Amino acid sequence: MRTTPEAVQKVGIIGAGVIGGGWALHFLRLGKKVLVYDPSEAAGEHLRETAKTTWPTLERIGLACGACLENLELVSSLEALNAAEVVQENAPEDLEQKQALYQELDTALDWDVPVLSSTSGFAMTDMQKTCRSAARTCVGHPFNPPYIVPFVEVVGGEKTDPETVRWAEAFYTACEKKVIAMQRELPGFIANRLQEALWREALHMVAEGEATPEEIDASIVYGPGLRWAFHGPCMTFHLAGGEGGMAHMLKHFEPALKEPWTRLEAPELSDTLRERMVQGCERQTAGRSIAEVVQERDECLIRVMQALQEIQPTNPIAQKDAYASCS
Amino acid sequence: MRTTPEAVQKVGIIGAGVIGGGWALHFLRLGKKVLVYDPSEAAGEHLRETAKTTWPTLERIGLACGACLENLELVSSLEALNAAEVVQENAPEDLEQKQALYQELDTALDWDVPVLSSTSGFAMTDMQKTCRSAARTCVGHPFNPPYIVPFVEVVGGEKTDPETVRWAEAFYTACEKKVIAMQRELPGFIANRLQEALWREALHMVAEGEATPEEIDASIVYGPGLRWAFHGPCMTFHLAGGEGGMAHMLKHFEPALKEPWTRLEAPELSDTLRERMVQGCERQTAGRSIAEVVQERDECLIRVMQALQEIQPTNPIAQKDAYASCS
Repeated sequence: MRTTPEAVQKVGIIGAGVIGGGWALHFLRLGKKVLVYDPSEAAGEHLRETAKTTWPTLERIGLACGACLENLELVSSLEALNAAEVVQENAPEDLEQKQALYQELDTALDWDVPVLSSTSGFAMTDMQKTCRSAARTCVGHPFNPPYIVPFVEVVGGEKTDPETVRWAEAFYTACEKKVIAMQRELPGFIANRLQEALWREALHMVAEGEATPEEIDASIVYGPGLRWAFHGPCMTFHLAGGEGGMAHMLKHFEPALKEPWTRLEAPELSDTLRERMVQGCERQTAGRSIAEVVQERDECLIRVMQALQEIQPTNPIAQKDAYASCS
Repeated sequence: MRTTPEAVQKVGIIGAGVIGGGWALHFLRLGKKVLVYDPSEAAGEHLRETAKTTWPTLERIGLACGACLENLELVSSLEALNAAEVVQENAPEDLEQKQALYQELDTALDWDVPVLSSTSGFAMTDMQKTCRSAARTCVGHPFNPPYIVPFVEVVGGEKTDPETVRWAEAFYTACEKKVIAMQRELPGFIANRLQEALWREALHMVAEGEATPEEIDASIVYGPGLRWAFHGPCMTFHLAGGEGGMAHMLKHFEPALKEPWTRLEAPELSDTLRERMVQGCERQTAGRSIAEVVQERDECLIRVMQALQEIQPTNPIAQKDAYASCS
């Protein structure tokens, strides 16, 4: 019998690296027992140390009833994860390794236990191809660090039981995550496709000597990155269009879509695409005027900049001097 | 005689739209007199209204001595901008229109007056091609809204006097901007190349029905967008690599660079590129350990999310419920 998503008390984690360890911390904060398996004993011990040093951060976010470091248990076999009600898989980003692992899980883990993968972009259809317990497998892709950043993408493979997808969505939501359950598999899912496009352009620029990593980072954190903390690219451009919103913006920048302003060519700006973009923005503004959303954007921007200014981190990139005098 | 960058008291603005108007507000906040020319009289009047409604926002950021709404003057000809010590050009994003405008400025404006362009990605070499006063022209590309977002990219064209580029850099810096002066022209500059790559991938996804605009926005604001407010893509991935930093991250994700996780192909991961990425991150961390930067990142993330939570904007996208209970 599968535990209901909201009632999960014990979470199994495969892989104690940055992402697996980050998930472990998140579930610890929520008061769950966490069993971690990593073939490297050192990785497990490292996680134990990280958990200690990160605990004050988890306290700041807010500990659930019963949350404590002692709920972290390192186990020495995949079979030991049978004590958990769900398993989050964080194996290396290598398709063959993932496939071999899922085959091992056929025998190691009761088939009722959902296995959710943190893969950054592999399709579950490919990862589950050679295993028999495919129905209980599903992607649950987080962002680093999983103990703070709320976004998780959920998507099943061809052999995934739709009930597993629904279970995963409900489980992550109960675990204070913002979930998008995708209707179809897409390499890189959604957020990573966007992030990866930006990242590859950045790599090209550094490879060609067009910009340094510092210039790339500065150009984001002092520019569009500030807005992306609360308005996605569509809402950002909706407001760049003034009173005319996205419709005006698409018209204004239509010629620019043909310019080599990135190595990625833009799609044809068809009537259908225009309409989808405009309607998607209007659904988000939900009847509020452009002026109202602009005011909200400005308030968000100022507060985000003030929040960062207060920390005054030693990292020069994170300093936003202009706002030192904000009220 | 050109005024020294720090002593500028009067700024001319061509174009009263979203960006031109935003620049006007920024210079008004800094206590400067602002002359605005727009061929559409309605646009000028609209800006006068916007300035009134945005004034409380400018007050929150902090008004310079003498800053007031009365410093905004609408003028009815390009010639009238001769009273200004520098002109910020915000004409439509159309190369022929820009070229025609720069030719007009040959006769309309004293050649000592620097003309700085807000173009989103055109090369100044192209815009200045048919004018005679090219030496005083230079790109000064802001991000919306220019009265809050600090980033400005500065780059000259082939015929630009290097002194004009230096002048522009000093002028924007004196105006509380974070400036990158680029050594060479690159279509889309730096930030817009990155933003445009992400944007084009988003348009492709919407065109193909792979995601909705809402899903795209949610995937950014609940995911990587939160980090990009203070760490650029390089620093973000430097931390995703754990103790091994960027070097480990590049190794871990090297196979993924060949995956179709975006429509943009990645460059070959050469030793030179690896080295540049690693060194660029190490220069940014400036001797601090990964653990220290991770702690700073977590602090920034929590504060940014708390800041956004406090506003509780009606926009569902901007709500980050998990942090309602943050201390």
